[in-house]
Amino acid sequence: MKIQVVRQILEWNEDKSAEIRALLKEKKVFFINLMGSPGAGKTTALKRLFTLMGDKVNIGVIEGDIAGKLDAETVQELGLPVVQLNTDGACHIEAMSIEAVLPYFDLDKLDVLIVENIGNLVCPAEFDLGEDFRLALLSVPEGDDKIEKYPLLFSRCHALGITKTDVKAAFDFDETRVAGSLRAINPHAPIFALSDKTGEGFAELAEHLLTVIGEKIG
Amino acid sequence: MKIQVVRQILEWNEDKSAEIRALLKEKKVFFINLMGSPGAGKTTALKRLFTLMGDKVNIGVIEGDIAGKLDAETVQELGLPVVQLNTDGACHIEAMSIEAVLPYFDLDKLDVLIVENIGNLVCPAEFDLGEDFRLALLSVPEGDDKIEKYPLLFSRCHALGITKTDVKAAFDFDETRVAGSLRAINPHAPIFALSDKTGEGFAELAEHLLTVIGEKIG
Repeated sequence: MKIQVVRQILEWNEDKSAEIRALLKEKKVFFINLMGSPGAGKTTALKRLFTLMGDKVNIGVIEGDIAGKLDAETVQELGLPVVQLNTDGACHIEAMSIEAVLPYFDLDKLDVLIVENIGNLVCPAEFDLGEDFRLALLSVPEGDDKIEKYPLLFSRCHALGITKTDVKAAFDFDETRVAGSLRAINPHAPIFALSDKTGEGFAELAEHLLTVIGEKIG
Repeated sequence: MKIQVVRQILEWNEDKSAEIRALLKEKKVFFINLMGSPGAGKTTALKRLFTLMGDKVNIGVIEGDIAGKLDAETVQELGLPVVQLNTDGACHIEAMSIEAVLPYFDLDKLDVLIVENIGNLVCPAEFDLGEDFRLALLSVPEGDDKIEKYPLLFSRCHALGITKTDVKAAFDFDETRVAGSLRAINPHAPIFALSDKTGEGFAELAEHLLTVIGEKIG
């Protein structure tokens, strides 16, 4: 019975995400779902990507959080249009919530919409939000076994960013293990080694995103 | 309608957790629910606590994971009785699953049962497993804003361990902010600064747990 309930929610979500996907396609908005653990560096990556891509594409941001608006404030300081989406305790964002916040954006002026999902490696992976691209982040301090332990999210991502590579020396982190475990479940997603401290990798990630965006929205 | 469904699951869970609590009380087993993000250091803390407490109390472990048995293997190497509980994709452990694994332990010989919950700051906080004590871990690399962003889990914990304090210099981590945000929602839980690298704080945490365990099971 419980499984049925979950299936029903997933089906509602699927209808909604298809609608969102159609709308954003029509409006030529590329939609990115940014996912990772609490503290994986999602907000920091957003800031970096805006700095690198902001002069080429118009970016809007949806900040998903269980409570508060800390990240939205951080992002707003950059001058990005941002909407805070509070889930009031829920562990993930559903397509219905995306539909509810889309009217806050002028979709005719937007090229890229990025939703920063709840910090969680489990539930967000199950909910299609209508996105074109799923960017997964894994930070070095979390450990090199996380793809094996939380496979769904990583199996479905279109790119993996390994963040906080500057502290690799302090942690027992084996990038080969991460790459191997990703390849076992996700043969094509490119991997970007990223560090906000040194700036490593963000230019390559931005370039990759701009290429994919260009292919999609022209 | 959706909320009703969730409530129903929570009610089933509540009945089960009350049964577990009564059984473990009768058997004089102290039950600890260990929670934190992926990579917060839950398994490492378990190992440290076993080393410090294993000669005074008989400990059993339930390793909760979405997939695989990496942590159970790590814990088993120490000679601890351990049962791997796979949630097959689910984001938290429910009391019903605890009930299902309890028969694998000889409760008459056990003093302390520790369940390592799924790495997740959201969903596990909502499900009472029948535990006597909730130990929450927050690692320095996750950032000092996490209690504000994921309040429920921290508001309900009986102790907070701040892990990986050895890398504090590499991160912009303000312990005063963490302590302040914990106090705002949880007036009494003690805070332990922990490092597996240096060993800091684990003796104090073990001593605190042994005191609380002693008060409960005599």
